[in-house]
Amino acid sequence: MKKAGILTIGDEILQGQTLNLNSQYISKQLTIRNINVLIHLTVPDKVSKIKEKINKFIIKDYDYIFITGGLGPTHDDVTKKALLELFDSKLIFLKSRHIYLEKKKKKKIPNSQSEILDISKKIENNIGTALGMEIEFNKSKIIILPGVPNEMNAMLTYYFEEKKILVTDSLIFTINTFGIYETQLSDKIESVINKYKNKIYCSFLPNYDGVKIRVKILDNSISEKKIKNEIVSLINKYAYSFDNDSLEEIILNLLIKNNLTLSIAESCTGGFISKSITDIPGSSKVFLGGLVAYNSSIKNIFLDIPNSAIKKYGEVSNKISQLMAKNISKKFKSDISISCTGISGPDGGSKEKPVGTVYITINYLGRLNTEKFIFQLDRKYHRIMTKQAALHMLWKLFASKLKY
Amino acid sequence: MKKAGILTIGDEILQGQTLNLNSQYISKQLTIRNINVLIHLTVPDKVSKIKEKINKFIIKDYDYIFITGGLGPTHDDVTKKALLELFDSKLIFLKSRHIYLEKKKKKKIPNSQSEILDISKKIENNIGTALGMEIEFNKSKIIILPGVPNEMNAMLTYYFEEKKILVTDSLIFTINTFGIYETQLSDKIESVINKYKNKIYCSFLPNYDGVKIRVKILDNSISEKKIKNEIVSLINKYAYSFDNDSLEEIILNLLIKNNLTLSIAESCTGGFISKSITDIPGSSKVFLGGLVAYNSSIKNIFLDIPNSAIKKYGEVSNKISQLMAKNISKKFKSDISISCTGISGPDGGSKEKPVGTVYITINYLGRLNTEKFIFQLDRKYHRIMTKQAALHMLWKLFASKLKY
Repeated sequence: MKKAGILTIGDEILQGQTLNLNSQYISKQLTIRNINVLIHLTVPDKVSKIKEKINKFIIKDYDYIFITGGLGPTHDDVTKKALLELFDSKLIFLKSRHIYLEKKKKKKIPNSQSEILDISKKIENNIGTALGMEIEFNKSKIIILPGVPNEMNAMLTYYFEEKKILVTDSLIFTINTFGIYETQLSDKIESVINKYKNKIYCSFLPNYDGVKIRVKILDNSISEKKIKNEIVSLINKYAYSFDNDSLEEIILNLLIKNNLTLSIAESCTGGFISKSITDIPGSSKVFLGGLVAYNSSIKNIFLDIPNSAIKKYGEVSNKISQLMAKNISKKFKSDISISCTGISGPDGGSKEKPVGTVYITINYLGRLNTEKFIFQLDRKYHRIMTKQAALHMLWKLFASKLKY
Repeated sequence: MKKAGILTIGDEILQGQTLNLNSQYISKQLTIRNINVLIHLTVPDKVSKIKEKINKFIIKDYDYIFITGGLGPTHDDVTKKALLELFDSKLIFLKSRHIYLEKKKKKKIPNSQSEILDISKKIENNIGTALGMEIEFNKSKIIILPGVPNEMNAMLTYYFEEKKILVTDSLIFTINTFGIYETQLSDKIESVINKYKNKIYCSFLPNYDGVKIRVKILDNSISEKKIKNEIVSLINKYAYSFDNDSLEEIILNLLIKNNLTLSIAESCTGGFISKSITDIPGSSKVFLGGLVAYNSSIKNIFLDIPNSAIKKYGEVSNKISQLMAKNISKKFKSDISISCTGISGPDGGSKEKPVGTVYITINYLGRLNTEKFIFQLDRKYHRIMTKQAALHMLWKLFASKLKY
C-alpha cells in the first residue's frame, strides 16, 4: 500500500480562522484509491518551517506528498519560495498560459500565478488563477496545489485522472446508522465481531447525525457483501446506508422510486430540513416546498391551526405537530409531509417542556406518526439531531414498507 | 508569547471520514488567549506514532500540548496506552466518580472511562463519560481530551477558566467583507498598508461567503480602532463586521434595533436563508417565517403569483423575484422580506439563463430592490453565494440608512 502525507500551509488554519477542509478532501480521495494517509500536518506561512517539513516527508519515503496553500498573489504566499530554496531551483514563467488566462478572466493577473518551478510539471487550474505543480524527487511525488477548496478539488481530480490513479474496490466500508448509541450498536453486532475476529476490524464513529460503523476487511478471502448483510440484519432499524450515501439522498431516491411528493412544515429547525433535502441535486422531482412557521401567527394563518388549539396545547405539542403535518400536506397537495415543533434554546423552556423538547410528525397519505424527543444539547446540535431524527422517521416508513 | 501544538489522533480523520473540527476549535481558543499555535498534527490510532509525536512536542518545548481523541471505551482507543508507555506510568481508577457517573447516566459504563494516569490531574467531563487529563512534564503542560467535539469544547472552556488562562485583548482582528474580490480589496486598502508598513500585516482570506481581511498589529503603539476606521472607510460598501460576527447576527441585531420584522420566500436556496437566520439564538424576535416555494405550484398557490406571469417571465426572472418578495411580505405581514429565485444546477440552465443565474429582491416597506447575479459554481457554492448575497443586500439597506 502506498503511503502519503498531507501538508497544509497557513496561519489562518493555525489561528482557527479557517477550517482545514483540504486535508479531509485529499484524505478521502486517497483512501478510496487505496493510498494510506499517515499524517496531516499544518504549519505557518514561514519559509523555514515549510522547507523543514517537506524535507522530513521526503526522508520518510512517502510516495505522495500533498501540499496546499500559499500559492496566491499576496505577500503572505510563500510556498513557492520555500520550494525554490529547498530544491535550489528557479521559476519559469508560462507566458502563453498567462495571456490566455488574462483573456479568459478579462482582467490583469499577477505574473506569479503562471510561474512554476523549473523542475516541476504544471497542474492546470481551470477555476482560479494559480497553477499547481508536480515535482518528482527521490521516490516521492510532491503535488503542490492552491488552498482554495474548489480549485484544489478540481485540480486533484484532474491529477488523479491523468496519472491513472484510480478508485479501487474498497476494503473499507461504512455503515451509517441513526437512533442508537455507540455502545448499544457495539453490543448488538458483537457476535459478528467475534465470529470474524482478526478478519475484520470495526470502529465506531459517533456524531450528532448518527453513529458510523467503519469496517475494515483484513482477510481478502472474506466477502464484503456477506459481512454487510450479517451486520445490517442485526441493526436494520438503524442502518440506513453505506459509505457516503446521506439520509437525504436515500430518502429522495425512495420518494422518486415510489413516485411520492414531499412537503415540510418546520418550526424550531427554521428551514434546515428543507435546506438539507434541497442540498441534493434532483430534489425538485419530489420536493414541492416547505413552510418555516417560526412565529405562531404563521401556523395560524398559513396552516389554519386555530389560535385556540395553540393556546390549549402549546406550540410545542403532539397536537400542533400533527396539525402542522396534516395541513401542510393538504395545502401543498403532497403525499408525504414532515413537521417539527420544538425548543432549540437557549431560551423558551419550561418545567414540563424543557429546552430540547421536540415533536416530529410524519404524515403519509393521512396516516400520522408522531414522536417526542428531548435532545438536551446546544441549539446547533439540537437542530442537527432534530433534522436527522425527522429524516430517520421518514426512512423507517420505507424500511417498514410504507406501513405503520 | 507562549507556544502550543495540537495533536489529534484517529484513523477516521486520516481517512477523511471525520472532519478535524477540534484542531480549529482549540486553535481559536488559544489565539484569543494570545497563545501561538505552531503546528497541527494528526496521526493514526497507533501507540508508537502517538508516543513519538508527543515526545517531539515535548522536546520542542511547547508550553501547551493539546491531544484529542482515542479516549473512548472501544478497542481502537489507544491514547492512554501510549501515554502509559511514554511516561512509564500507571492507571488509577476513580471509583467514586465512576459510581456517580453510572448513577447520572443510568447505565453501566466501562471502568476505563474513569481511569487516569497516576501522574495526571483529571479534567471532568460533564457531558460524556471519558475523563480528560493534564500532565505537567518538563516545561510543558499536556492536556488530553476526548475527541467528541462538544465534550472537548466544554472541557477546554472549563480548563481555561480553572487555570485562569484568559481571553486577551487581541492584537489580531478580522474585517469581514462580501461582494468584492481579494485583489480589488487589496488595491482599495493599499494606501493604508503602505502607510503602516512594518507596523501592521494584512492578509486576505477568500471564501464563498466573502473575503476576510486579517490584520495583525505588529507595533503596540498603534491604535486598533484607528486602523479599523482607516481601512473600513475605504471599503464601507463591503465591510459588514469584525471578527466572528456573522452577517446573520449583524442583520438580526439591526432588525431588532429598528423594530422591523422579516419574512423570506426562497426558491433555489430551498430554506437555506431561513435556516441561516434561525441558526442565531433570538432570531424569533424579528423573523416571522419563510416559504420554500420550490415547485412553481407553491409560488402560484401560496404567493398568489399568476401562472400566466410565471409562463411569461419564467420562474427565474426579475418579475417573479419581485412578486415573491412583495407577496410574502403582504401574507406574512412583515416589514421586510427577502426573495430569491435561481438555477443552482446542475440541470435547468438555458442559453439566456445559464446555470448560476439568480434574482434576489429585498422588499422594505413596499420599496423593492432587485439584483441579478450569475454565480457559475457548483450547486453547493451557488447556494452559499446566493444566501450571502441576499443577506448582504439587506445589510446594505441599513448601511445606507434604510434608503435606496
